[in-house]
Amino acid sequence: MNSAVDLPLGVADLTFAASGDALVRRTVLPSGVRILSEQVPGARSATLGYWVAVGSRDESEGGAGHPGTLGSTHFLEHLLFKGTRTRTALDIAVSFDSVGGEHNAMTAKEYTCYYAKVQDRDLAMAVEVIGDMLTSSVIDPAEFENERGVILEELSMAEDDPGDVANERMFQAVLGSHPLGRPIGGRPDTIRAATRDGVWEHYRANYRPQDLVVTAAGAVDHDLLVAGVERALVAAGWDLDRAADPVDRRATDPAVIERGSAIVTVARPTEQANVFVGMPGIVATDPRRTSMSVLNSVLGGGMSSRLFQEVRERRGLAYSVYSFSGSYSDAGVFGLYAGCSPAKARQVTELMLEELRRLASDGVTPDELRRAVGQLSGGAALALEDSDTRMSRLGRAEISLGEFADLDESLRRLHLVTADDVRDLAAELAGRPVSVAAVGSVTDDLFAGLAP
Amino acid sequence: MNSAVDLPLGVADLTFAASGDALVRRTVLPSGVRILSEQVPGARSATLGYWVAVGSRDESEGGAGHPGTLGSTHFLEHLLFKGTRTRTALDIAVSFDSVGGEHNAMTAKEYTCYYAKVQDRDLAMAVEVIGDMLTSSVIDPAEFENERGVILEELSMAEDDPGDVANERMFQAVLGSHPLGRPIGGRPDTIRAATRDGVWEHYRANYRPQDLVVTAAGAVDHDLLVAGVERALVAAGWDLDRAADPVDRRATDPAVIERGSAIVTVARPTEQANVFVGMPGIVATDPRRTSMSVLNSVLGGGMSSRLFQEVRERRGLAYSVYSFSGSYSDAGVFGLYAGCSPAKARQVTELMLEELRRLASDGVTPDELRRAVGQLSGGAALALEDSDTRMSRLGRAEISLGEFADLDESLRRLHLVTADDVRDLAAELAGRPVSVAAVGSVTDDLFAGLAP
Repeated sequence: MNSAVDLPLGVADLTFAASGDALVRRTVLPSGVRILSEQVPGARSATLGYWVAVGSRDESEGGAGHPGTLGSTHFLEHLLFKGTRTRTALDIAVSFDSVGGEHNAMTAKEYTCYYAKVQDRDLAMAVEVIGDMLTSSVIDPAEFENERGVILEELSMAEDDPGDVANERMFQAVLGSHPLGRPIGGRPDTIRAATRDGVWEHYRANYRPQDLVVTAAGAVDHDLLVAGVERALVAAGWDLDRAADPVDRRATDPAVIERGSAIVTVARPTEQANVFVGMPGIVATDPRRTSMSVLNSVLGGGMSSRLFQEVRERRGLAYSVYSFSGSYSDAGVFGLYAGCSPAKARQVTELMLEELRRLASDGVTPDELRRAVGQLSGGAALALEDSDTRMSRLGRAEISLGEFADLDESLRRLHLVTADDVRDLAAELAGRPVSVAAVGSVTDDLFAGLAP
Repeated sequence: MNSAVDLPLGVADLTFAASGDALVRRTVLPSGVRILSEQVPGARSATLGYWVAVGSRDESEGGAGHPGTLGSTHFLEHLLFKGTRTRTALDIAVSFDSVGGEHNAMTAKEYTCYYAKVQDRDLAMAVEVIGDMLTSSVIDPAEFENERGVILEELSMAEDDPGDVANERMFQAVLGSHPLGRPIGGRPDTIRAATRDGVWEHYRANYRPQDLVVTAAGAVDHDLLVAGVERALVAAGWDLDRAADPVDRRATDPAVIERGSAIVTVARPTEQANVFVGMPGIVATDPRRTSMSVLNSVLGGGMSSRLFQEVRERRGLAYSVYSFSGSYSDAGVFGLYAGCSPAKARQVTELMLEELRRLASDGVTPDELRRAVGQLSGGAALALEDSDTRMSRLGRAEISLGEFADLDESLRRLHLVTADDVRDLAAELAGRPVSVAAVGSVTDDLFAGLAP
């Protein structure tokens, strides 16, 4: 069965087969809480995610007299591990460590996700503990101060990674003042300025029933999952029967993007230059997203890709070279990356841009198209062996796409992509304003003229 | 069934159940080639590894008039992707990219491994292509020069990662002149000095039947695997019937280790100091290796561990803090790591050492022991869901341990570990000479007295 299922909020229950004999079920509680599961026959473990549809883009810059909330979403994510009304930080850590589960969280630009991978018998515990963290954190002032130090260290670690720094600068350069251009973790000054009460306010304002999506995949029984989530939320005093306002947090039309900068360099005494070339990409719901996957595969998605062959195999100029596409509700970024000698940074940047332009003018060969379809379909099949991937796919379907496409439907769409689709998309990308962001022993002058 | 099976070279065929209903089989060809598989019922994909029992420790330093071979093992690993008598580099890349398989290699201190994860229908292709790469590479001089550039970029990338640099310096500091103390990739000067013929010689000398181990896990049929490997090796002209000398590459007794340095610092204008505290650990076959796993779990293995609780949770001094154990045939390293503000680097180092000493004097609590056993057994069960983990476990069993212990046997040993075992091991580690290696805005003076 090929199936692409729309996920409208107004529908309380949906059941559909997905990717072989796995069964996807979705329940929407009256309060707007959404719960999705994918039961995989024979699985002995499960991955669980509690998603909140708030990310760094939803923070405020602040202004005269108000410090803003930059970095508060990520700060909050850390704080939810620090104790609830009934559990200490150590209790939370012990719950997962003592069963050998993986247990972590991530803050992204448009969502925050708390997840755990556990054996089947430990899933109920995971549902309860993460549910408690999400709803009943106390955000103790002393813990808040300790965690401020931890987060400043995390920012320092990222600042010491030249690739991370170049990537963040590239997003800012391409997206300008759009909130998606901001770094996810905030800045050291915004973290130093953050107050316990400010983060508490961010917590109360954003962790609401209608922002919450729970997904689980693997050895999961949907009814037990729903019951477990309800129990955890009711224990926290949430009223699951009171109908909530519909979620309208996200824009649905592509935003108008004004480039922030053409060329940004950060001088560092490093051995390599880390160079990103970026441009506006496509939004998450763009119907050309499958063509984008093919384009990305051909241009910079593997050892046989054009960037790898030209920059690394033929010329030996880089160890790491690739392309990537990031898509969000109302904007996206497409980019090229290489780490290379500073003396070769201009040449490598020119080579990468040339490969994109060649794709825009000449398109892909039938061989390349066939290979990309093989790569993407084989990769998708392999990825679905992990319950992590299935859990994430459910969350992204619900939060970013508004539809769930199973493996067969994804493959059907993939086989519909034509060489013309890819060339047209490449031409559109190549015609957009380019930004170059580089970290290393380089200056703006080195890239002069490459980002007109 | 609990089973720990010895893996003597003299036995041609072994079959044993492992970890539930998976079946492990092992075949030793007369030439010494060893082939192991673990067939997992219901699996739709497989991970394949070709292991060669040669690593960076087997290289020579060189001397008067001879450049040595430092970095040649890793250089060679790269070159095997660059073409054989019948396949170009692009052919090899396309073989895996076109089916969406993962495909890579790693060079370690005591082995090199070429691996692929593919759907079941593509396993025969993977066996053939990697077999061809391993046996029939041409090492074209022009490709050699290109790849020299790629490897120099890879070394530059590692040099720009302060954590990588600190880790390498720590190994050198702890192990002194022992070959295991050397960096795996060589140094820029040894890579610049390497010649095509020198690496070719390294290839011919070390890629012999008796050094080769092939392992596969997941959707794999042992007889087909053996037939496929034999076909690939015979096609390359290997004589699989000629009995080879037994492998005696590895020492079996622990080496006498003389500390290289007490304190090593590399000054860098980074935000964080990356600090490693290291000391000689245990060898791979040490019967206390299960106690070591428990010790490592309690001291620095998760969010509830002592290092995490003391350094991060209570004091907010680091984002990343952990302990680790690395074991090899005749030496090992045990270590502690934290990334922290340079101003706090001494305090954090003292705290980490204090936690090790406290474990040595007071031992672990019954709660901690129970939790560590739960963490390690749960983690082992989850890890076995990936055919990658099973494939690696087979290779390490054959190359490093000389025995294969299934999950039940591993858990049985784990439950035998006592609090006294852990305390005694901690006391032994705490009594060994310590080295501190740090990268950042720090000097040797900062750590004075901490590595007597």
